[in-house]
Amino acid sequence: MSDTPNGMSRREELLSVATKLFAARGYHGTRMDDVAEAVGLNKATVYHYYASKSLILYDIYKTAADFTVGALHDDPSASARETIYHFTRRLLVGIASDVERAAVYFQEGPYITEWFTEEQVAYIREKETQVYEHVRDVIDRGIASGEFYDCDSHVLALGYIGMTLGSYRWLRPQGRRTAQEIAAEFSTALLRGLIRDETVRAQSPLGIDVDDAEKAAQ
Amino acid sequence: MSDTPNGMSRREELLSVATKLFAARGYHGTRMDDVAEAVGLNKATVYHYYASKSLILYDIYKTAADFTVGALHDDPSASARETIYHFTRRLLVGIASDVERAAVYFQEGPYITEWFTEEQVAYIREKETQVYEHVRDVIDRGIASGEFYDCDSHVLALGYIGMTLGSYRWLRPQGRRTAQEIAAEFSTALLRGLIRDETVRAQSPLGIDVDDAEKAAQ
Repeated sequence: MSDTPNGMSRREELLSVATKLFAARGYHGTRMDDVAEAVGLNKATVYHYYASKSLILYDIYKTAADFTVGALHDDPSASARETIYHFTRRLLVGIASDVERAAVYFQEGPYITEWFTEEQVAYIREKETQVYEHVRDVIDRGIASGEFYDCDSHVLALGYIGMTLGSYRWLRPQGRRTAQEIAAEFSTALLRGLIRDETVRAQSPLGIDVDDAEKAAQ
Repeated sequence: MSDTPNGMSRREELLSVATKLFAARGYHGTRMDDVAEAVGLNKATVYHYYASKSLILYDIYKTAADFTVGALHDDPSASARETIYHFTRRLLVGIASDVERAAVYFQEGPYITEWFTEEQVAYIREKETQVYEHVRDVIDRGIASGEFYDCDSHVLALGYIGMTLGSYRWLRPQGRRTAQEIAAEFSTALLRGLIRDETVRAQSPLGIDVDDAEKAAQ
């Protein structure tokens, strides 16, 4: 597979261009001809990489869903607040790195059963369930241990996922605040609302020093 | 204008049916023929009520945008926490009352410049700005008065709007929790995170007794 001048493989470039077109015009409003023209390939070459338009969309979906599951914090010894903060930070950094991918994911969500096979839909739904259950379970773990106030973990998990994932609407890589800073703001607001212990709440609602965490992440 | 058996005017019924179709198939994927067929009118009659498909979409948008602005709490003597709670409650009750309208609003958002006139887009954008600025200003007011911790009101306003408006994805009128209950959960989580005063925070984060408020709203 030959490389393009920007270092992406042809397939990666095709995916990137298609993602931008789907984000701007919608999947339904974008034809394979538009993709071929925008990427500067003939249509036969496009079909060599993706046998159908829906396979491009599925590639976008699968990448985004796998990324989100990968962002789940997997250290079982971490406190609930640390777990939520790390997940939020990874998620927002990921969204900021490819806002169009997140936009396509959310914009086309209601219609994927029209374009995807049952197996494809089941794969995506399974990942979404994993993410929701993880966030709910972390909140439940915090409640059970006394770290958090009692609350409806189901409703708060859905709300918090909406708050973080919905940021693709306005999160920009070159914006006024970095994705890390926004993650710290979101996590602090939620966690200050959940944490019982007044000292923890006032002094380290994220469970860690944010400056240290940003250094460690670099 | 003749009334239908369910008490809606023909125009209201047409709008309701079109909203459901747009929510399920997307605006782009729904033809005026589909709307006419689903509502049981001939196409000429549909065009009598709406001269174009985009005017139906604009009616959905304008109604939703006006409703959201109308949900802003207008009592300047209320505390910041009460203001946020009342806005959240009105908004979630409104979304639960017409989930499809909210779905169309969000799903078609990225593409409205394709379908609407500049004046129509400007009207919608102005309402969205009003809502964002109201939430941001309420948080700023709470910070200035010492009611809230210092925080990035811009980021939190965007996050909180995403959390509340994004609930159309899973909020159902007949769900396990009512819209009022979900509003209380969301507001409590955010406000416990913002309120400085430990007694207020622990005892009345919403600024009012929720049971009283629900009685008053009935």
